[in-house]
Amino acid sequence: MRLNEQAAGVFIICVTPFTEDGALDLPSAERMVEFYLERGATGLTVLGMMGEAPKLTMAESLTFVDCVLKCVAGRVPVVVGVSGPGLASMAELSAAVMASGAAGVMVAPPSNLRSDAQIRSYFSQVAQAIGMDTPFVLQDFPLATTVMISTATIIQIVADNPNCVMLKHEDWPGLNKITELRSAQASGAMRPISILVGNGGIFLPEELARGVDGAMTGFAFPEMMADVYHAYSSGDAERARDLFDAYLPLARYEQQPGFGLAVRKYVLAKRGAIGSATLRAPAPKLSAADIADIEGLIERQTRRLEELS
Amino acid sequence: MRLNEQAAGVFIICVTPFTEDGALDLPSAERMVEFYLERGATGLTVLGMMGEAPKLTMAESLTFVDCVLKCVAGRVPVVVGVSGPGLASMAELSAAVMASGAAGVMVAPPSNLRSDAQIRSYFSQVAQAIGMDTPFVLQDFPLATTVMISTATIIQIVADNPNCVMLKHEDWPGLNKITELRSAQASGAMRPISILVGNGGIFLPEELARGVDGAMTGFAFPEMMADVYHAYSSGDAERARDLFDAYLPLARYEQQPGFGLAVRKYVLAKRGAIGSATLRAPAPKLSAADIADIEGLIERQTRRLEELS
Amino acid sequence: MRLNEQAAGVFIICVTPFTEDGALDLPSAERMVEFYLERGATGLTVLGMMGEAPKLTMAESLTFVDCVLKCVAGRVPVVVGVSGPGLASMAELSAAVMASGAAGVMVAPPSNLRSDAQIRSYFSQVAQAIGMDTPFVLQDFPLATTVMISTATIIQIVADNPNCVMLKHEDWPGLNKITELRSAQASGAMRPISILVGNGGIFLPEELARGVDGAMTGFAFPEMMADVYHAYSSGDAERARDLFDAYLPLARYEQQPGFGLAVRKYVLAKRGAIGSATLRAPAPKLSAADIADIEGLIERQTRRLEELS
Amino acid sequence: MRLNEQAAGVFIICVTPFTEDGALDLPSAERMVEFYLERGATGLTVLGMMGEAPKLTMAESLTFVDCVLKCVAGRVPVVVGVSGPGLASMAELSAAVMASGAAGVMVAPPSNLRSDAQIRSYFSQVAQAIGMDTPFVLQDFPLATTVMISTATIIQIVADNPNCVMLKHEDWPGLNKITELRSAQASGAMRPISILVGNGGIFLPEELARGVDGAMTGFAFPEMMADVYHAYSSGDAERARDLFDAYLPLARYEQQPGFGLAVRKYVLAKRGAIGSATLRAPAPKLSAADIADIEGLIERQTRRLEELS
Repeated sequence: MRLNEQAAGVFIICVTPFTEDGALDLPSAERMVEFYLERGATGLTVLGMMGEAPKLTMAESLTFVDCVLKCVAGRVPVVVGVSGPGLASMAELSAAVMASGAAGVMVAPPSNLRSDAQIRSYFSQVAQAIGMDTPFVLQDFPLATTVMISTATIIQIVADNPNCVMLKHEDWPGLNKITELRSAQASGAMRPISILVGNGGIFLPEELARGVDGAMTGFAFPEMMADVYHAYSSGDAERARDLFDAYLPLARYEQQPGFGLAVRKYVLAKRGAIGSATLRAPAPKLSAADIADIEGLIERQTRRLEELS
Repeated sequence: MRLNEQAAGVFIICVTPFTEDGALDLPSAERMVEFYLERGATGLTVLGMMGEAPKLTMAESLTFVDCVLKCVAGRVPVVVGVSGPGLASMAELSAAVMASGAAGVMVAPPSNLRSDAQIRSYFSQVAQAIGMDTPFVLQDFPLATTVMISTATIIQIVADNPNCVMLKHEDWPGLNKITELRSAQASGAMRPISILVGNGGIFLPEELARGVDGAMTGFAFPEMMADVYHAYSSGDAERARDLFDAYLPLARYEQQPGFGLAVRKYVLAKRGAIGSATLRAPAPKLSAADIADIEGLIERQTRRLEELS
Repeated sequence: MRLNEQAAGVFIICVTPFTEDGALDLPSAERMVEFYLERGATGLTVLGMMGEAPKLTMAESLTFVDCVLKCVAGRVPVVVGVSGPGLASMAELSAAVMASGAAGVMVAPPSNLRSDAQIRSYFSQVAQAIGMDTPFVLQDFPLATTVMISTATIIQIVADNPNCVMLKHEDWPGLNKITELRSAQASGAMRPISILVGNGGIFLPEELARGVDGAMTGFAFPEMMADVYHAYSSGDAERARDLFDAYLPLARYEQQPGFGLAVRKYVLAKRGAIGSATLRAPAPKLSAADIADIEGLIERQTRRLEELS
Repeated sequence: MRLNEQAAGVFIICVTPFTEDGALDLPSAERMVEFYLERGATGLTVLGMMGEAPKLTMAESLTFVDCVLKCVAGRVPVVVGVSGPGLASMAELSAAVMASGAAGVMVAPPSNLRSDAQIRSYFSQVAQAIGMDTPFVLQDFPLATTVMISTATIIQIVADNPNCVMLKHEDWPGLNKITELRSAQASGAMRPISILVGNGGIFLPEELARGVDGAMTGFAFPEMMADVYHAYSSGDAERARDLFDAYLPLARYEQQPGFGLAVRKYVLAKRGAIGSATLRAPAPKLSAADIADIEGLIERQTRRLEELS
């Protein structure tokens, strides 16, 4: 099961569960996989930015990926984030996870790239390093990387590299980039690729209206993304927006940079998806006031969803 | 009417209206002032980042401020953004607007500052340059300035400069900074200052719960902030959140960096607050799809507010 | 005397002289002009980054430019830096100085630009704003602006805007950019432009060998640049390098970012070119150890130059 | 042999040699070690930024370090760069190299740190992660990391962490930071630490005069640093400067960010220290004009050194 341009639905960006003392928590990883699949995931993505990937050793990364792949057992495709400062480590990790059964890998550009030519050249080197038979996802996330990838450059990267099959779109603002890419595809200026959106899904209704294939992002209530996607896909855009609006106050709260991952893990632990909300240092800690905020938001969200059902 | 640490409620960050051909539109400025005051503004702030201040010449800035001050005629305090690359221009603009009747000025740090000591030293120079009898607002907006001001540094700036009377808080994430500052104030480690929040108000309920005095930000439906503030202040936090949630989908859409100002001006023009949605170049332009998004969001927002009334 | 692509030699980046108490020092400006012209300047550039331009009010900027233009009295072309956050102020300043007799203006990109298309579009707006009959210099200085302008983008900007007649080249590393641009020019892919180099001239011999037309930069011994340029132009590259090497230890010391301007003004004051070494705040101050360094470097430089003469 | 605050002289920042096809070149590593020791190295530092550390896999890093340690065989202390995005990988690498006989490790801050408190907290986490019995070098290199560490923060980091024994100083400008730190040490405000300077040694004479203990940096003629250090230490500051000035033109050329490593490897290969000048991608390539520059600079340098001997 190789990732291709037909990928659609909701690929959940997985957290990496740790025990209270910071060790990899593989039993939690198993529960988490089931939790995500039960809530409508059509794919999983591990070792992303919100998966605390840089905080793992290479051995831990491989152990975690193997555990997830074993639990998933082919039910959905699994994408593995392999971004990093060097191509050799990227190639090593990529080869290992593809051999273990991953569907593809995901790469964000390093923060020193600036000009279009630098970005284009970098992704050609990536495509080469991971091998042409390894499908990859181009992650476009300027808020985190400081790298601004123009629409024209994305089109060039897709043309240059047959193994670039998906865009993880999280430019902000980024709605018109979607429109431009879909228009390039329609006119034949770009071969079809899958576009899945990020940013915790907080623009999901508008992004679906612009023609994306779904979402690849995280949220402690991943059913939001699956339900919005299905309502929209089945033609009920108003229902999609009603659902979205019910989750939006918490999604917005979880979308605070850096801090949001502590929120997400708190809620996932509360919901039983993982055993502990622990993050590895350096990491923010939730205060009592933060927890009060979250509990209040969940309570209101629950009421609102009941009104909608 | 000098700004002081008692300032509270909602200070609206004003847009700067232009005619279709990009000239200052003073008749629109007059309508806009009335529009904001009718919707509950307890203060106005002009020449902020969302006021396209850097796109005005000095003469235009002074003309616009004078026009706004004349329209307001003392009904509410008016704060003027004077941030800029040089202290001499800042002092010149500051002196001119205070002479015309402004209540105080607002200053964001230039983007090259990094260490605590550099930031602290800069604000002492600012306080000196504008004069100790000119109250100033410290604008803490890392997403736009790239300058990270720690809580300890804010406390030092307040201690150093008696004319620092307010924090425009728009760190993101920033809720715990509010908690820390209010706690410093409670323990006597910092003299009282007013804290008004920014970021389009998209964390307003949580920020009010942390003890802020209100908001100083913009949104094409400024009544959201006034109504949320009043509901919260009168003890009805649930009502405050219901109102907030109704406006959140559009507020989120308007909060897209850079692009959001085009959204705001489109809606303000549609609502009759200003004559034209024109921005000065360089500026984003709304596409047909963007306008469809906005119209759909307003329609849903209107329905939701009717259900709440 | 309009600036054009034939400009060559050494355009000195002028400091802006202040009195001890920080006021504009126009008598010093007059002395400085003569000092620079006597040492071989074929042009002058005022209100550059090293001219503390952002620290002047608009009125001061105009007064200073007028003073310099009057002193120069047409003996050499004068370029005026007009970079700034807004196009309206840029157009205003540009129109005023061209009316007073400036030969052209210089523009560096604002630090938020990233993609090739953003940079290209910005310079088209600049060219429009200043007017097609105002020649302009594109300043390419990534260390200061964080904007990386690729060779391909420079070629496009030159093609887009007939009034772009010169590149102030201070990319670092940047030697191969010169080679690429000269090769584009040779092949007809770019119309001829003047290329003058910056960075205090610390790569001047290599840059001359790559085909630049001279330097547009500052150094407290501007005769270094003029002498190196003339030796090189008259075919004596070894003599050019001997001279360069003699000045390099001090040039390197003056090339420290930010701090270097305090060094430059100290030496210019010591040499009698200006009345005071004062910088406007915020600014670094020289310590006793710094002054000892500088005095020692000048002493060695003097000895070395005597050996060469 | 653990690194401590007495470390002095010249620690050469080693390149990592690769064969033409990009594989680790261990025979060259052996030659390089002898080359550096013969030219006066009192220590070696591997896996630094100029050692292409991020381009190695973990296994390659360990192989290379082991090879170097074996060749050195205790003749001088070896420091290993362990900077990276995650503390777990840093701890793993650190433990491995200390077990193999390294004298200490070196850590630069990740580029997202801004406020003094963030930087201070990060280094406490580092000190904890590597273990209190692992001495570490704090690398202060804002041009590469974008992190500005104030003098006050360095003093706090030294106070917080007994295992912080050395500062690799490469702030630019940074001379007064040295003066401030040595003054803090003299007054008892900071315990003694070793300060070795970077930046290719291009401020070495001035830095020695400010009281540093030597250099920890790279240059294809490492004898420059050793000879300057010895001349200065033996009381002949003028001789130190004469030697320095002879090497400065090439040192300046090699100090071009990113590009400079290609220059360094070219010269090291030419001098027989390593078998190939190959860099791993992404990497700059020298043009014919670059090579002509370098050859010319070496020729002049040779002549100048002969005049001095």
